[in-house]
Amino acid sequence: MRANRLCQLLNIRYPVIQAGMVWASDWHLAAACSNSGILGTLGLGSMSHEEIALNIEKMKNSTENPFAVNIPLLRPDAVDLARIAHDAGVRIFITSAGNPERIAPDINRKKTIWFHVVPSVKGAQKAEKTGVDAVICEGYEAGGHNSPLEITTLALVPQVADAVKVPVVAAGGIADGRGIAAVMALGASGAQMGTRFIATDECQAHNNHKRLIVDAPDTGTCIIGRKLDMLRVLRTEFADQMLKSELEGASREDLLEIIGNEFNRNRSGSVLGDLKDGAFQAGQSSGLVNDIIPVDTLVQRLISEYNAARNSLPAL
Amino acid sequence: MRANRLCQLLNIRYPVIQAGMVWASDWHLAAACSNSGILGTLGLGSMSHEEIALNIEKMKNSTENPFAVNIPLLRPDAVDLARIAHDAGVRIFITSAGNPERIAPDINRKKTIWFHVVPSVKGAQKAEKTGVDAVICEGYEAGGHNSPLEITTLALVPQVADAVKVPVVAAGGIADGRGIAAVMALGASGAQMGTRFIATDECQAHNNHKRLIVDAPDTGTCIIGRKLDMLRVLRTEFADQMLKSELEGASREDLLEIIGNEFNRNRSGSVLGDLKDGAFQAGQSSGLVNDIIPVDTLVQRLISEYNAARNSLPAL
Repeated sequence: MRANRLCQLLNIRYPVIQAGMVWASDWHLAAACSNSGILGTLGLGSMSHEEIALNIEKMKNSTENPFAVNIPLLRPDAVDLARIAHDAGVRIFITSAGNPERIAPDINRKKTIWFHVVPSVKGAQKAEKTGVDAVICEGYEAGGHNSPLEITTLALVPQVADAVKVPVVAAGGIADGRGIAAVMALGASGAQMGTRFIATDECQAHNNHKRLIVDAPDTGTCIIGRKLDMLRVLRTEFADQMLKSELEGASREDLLEIIGNEFNRNRSGSVLGDLKDGAFQAGQSSGLVNDIIPVDTLVQRLISEYNAARNSLPAL
Repeated sequence: MRANRLCQLLNIRYPVIQAGMVWASDWHLAAACSNSGILGTLGLGSMSHEEIALNIEKMKNSTENPFAVNIPLLRPDAVDLARIAHDAGVRIFITSAGNPERIAPDINRKKTIWFHVVPSVKGAQKAEKTGVDAVICEGYEAGGHNSPLEITTLALVPQVADAVKVPVVAAGGIADGRGIAAVMALGASGAQMGTRFIATDECQAHNNHKRLIVDAPDTGTCIIGRKLDMLRVLRTEFADQMLKSELEGASREDLLEIIGNEFNRNRSGSVLGDLKDGAFQAGQSSGLVNDIIPVDTLVQRLISEYNAARNSLPAL
């Protein structure tokens, strides 16, 4: 008997999803997560078609448990990614950052399970209508691409839970078992976590990305690109330069020139560990992350913290 | 035996604080809250010295239960307000929007209980060092004056709970019992709620303020004044005009001219109900508020929702 309907739907032991992240969630991390009883996710956003095929093959050889792929719909070839993954045997899809209708025919086939990431009640209702099996509500505190609607996880989750019938997963601001208990009290069936999983042994991100997360205080992230695509990143020299230019009223064009190629900018951070010019995506939960540990140790700790938080609530 | 250490400290039945709000929390609301088993709070920010004396007198005649006053430290005469309230017999003080050191000698006397509102871990540590009895962590989703640090309640509460020894109260984004359970799972000893209490029969805010909250969707509030003092308000004609000017790059001076007198602007909203020119402070939890009801009905519902949320959490 699974703990709740999210665990039943995904056939996983614990109601936690490791978020698919650009440059930071290949098969090493995803397999460790799936093997620990949560849902591991390959982040396809930063992978070539060949890398995707290789990663799915490695996953299938590394775990017998369910795993997912994340497809950011802002990638022009998103539909191709879905087809490649489906042909390779992937059956759990998480889409984000775009209109779910566009990809529905290519994902929503027999035996597939489809989750879509949304920033609002309207987004959740639209995704449900499009045929998703669950929605992932992502709040303003989340790392990476971020909605200009700015609704926080705490405010968003209960409103979405009231508005849709499919299971709701919460994302943004969660890095320990207290956060998992909190979002489940709000009406979510589970939590998606990204930042916390970067600071693990199995994550292949550069050690500087992990260290920046571990060292970050509560104020350690910021939103850059309010005039472009909003992105939550760790405070670094590049991020501070962006903030300064934005404050001084730089135009869209100026800002695009400062960022340069976003793909390379993120790669410089997460892969090369370039503390000066790299961008390092992470959420406000960075302030809660204080160590770099194996995934299995982390998952056991999350569940033990969850149970402690659950048991600490007094009857009123 | 009280439910937890917040209830013990304040000698209240339920771990909930009605936030002191400008123009919206006089003795009618605060007395109803204290009589319902939570902590009622007079919002002194918008009151004259005479009104403060009158409101405290009325409170003392309307409830035998504990109540607090809220003093926004941005008011130049904040120290006078503390003295007036103390002389009138008030023993529970909540300060916000400023440096707690400034007012410590005037509040932190024998038999007083002092809570201070903070937006960050550093703010909480400083308040604890200054001698407060508890900190109220207020996240980015909260209504009214808001910190440029933008840390959300979900990310902030557990970090502050780890950083201080005094009890932690969570504020921002909470409007039902699910939210109370959530922040307590994060490590808070209770919740402070403002927006939800505006939409009650006893609140003396203009009915238009209440209706705007009830009608607001999840996207119904915004931050205005990023270049000045940040304020979260309901989307109205005035708020949209501010957003438009900010987007167009208006200077501080231009923006100050658009706002005019902030005191009057807020009064036009909450007291006069001016839907065109008024400012109506409220948090992102507005989207969770769907009715205008008596305080006692609300408090009973909050506790019943809290217990349901608590009982819904599966053991993992």
